[in-house]
Amino acid sequence: MYLISVYDVNEERVGKIHKIMKKYLIWQQNSTFEGYITQGNFKKLKRDLYKIIKKEEDNIIFYIFNSKENFIRLDFGVVKTKFEGLIIK
Amino acid sequence: MYLISVYDVNEERVGKIHKIMKKYLIWQQNSTFEGYITQGNFKKLKRDLYKIIKKEEDNIIFYIFNSKENFIRLDFGVVKTKFEGLIIK
Repeated sequence: MYLISVYDVNEERVGKIHKIMKKYLIWQQNSTFEGYITQGNFKKLKRDLYKIIKKEEDNIIFYIFNSKENFIRLDFGVVKTKFEGLIIK
Repeated sequence: MYLISVYDVNEERVGKIHKIMKKYLIWQQNSTFEGYITQGNFKKLKRDLYKIIKKEEDNIIFYIFNSKENFIRLDFGVVKTKFEGLIIK
């Protein structure tokens, strides 16, 4: 499956969330990750995140797709990720 | 069409970008908007944003779908938007 994930978490936890996300997905810009992921790894990702976030304060959104073919991505300005080859512009 | 938009822009421009996005889409969390939009309004949105951003510094990503049926949205923690009714959790 393909994921786009965005998060809005307390400043204290941003670093930890970023570190966990980076293990499974590709950084795109501030608080935004994308990438293909297996069911198994998605389970681990959610479990790792669940240990960190404060449910009443933080918000992490996962947009879940069968594949990247389900959408078109349009970038304005400078693409901030090094993995440009992986993105359809 | 349905849009998810995320942005990573210089602090000086965050307020202006937020104001423009709010005219056309629904705020979800920090620097993240979603919503149905017509071709015409998407043109206006892009034109308005283009006047503001600094292309060599800022990044706005649009993920473009035919409809919201193309993905599943999973929220961790507190959903920050008031328009909860519009989201599939």
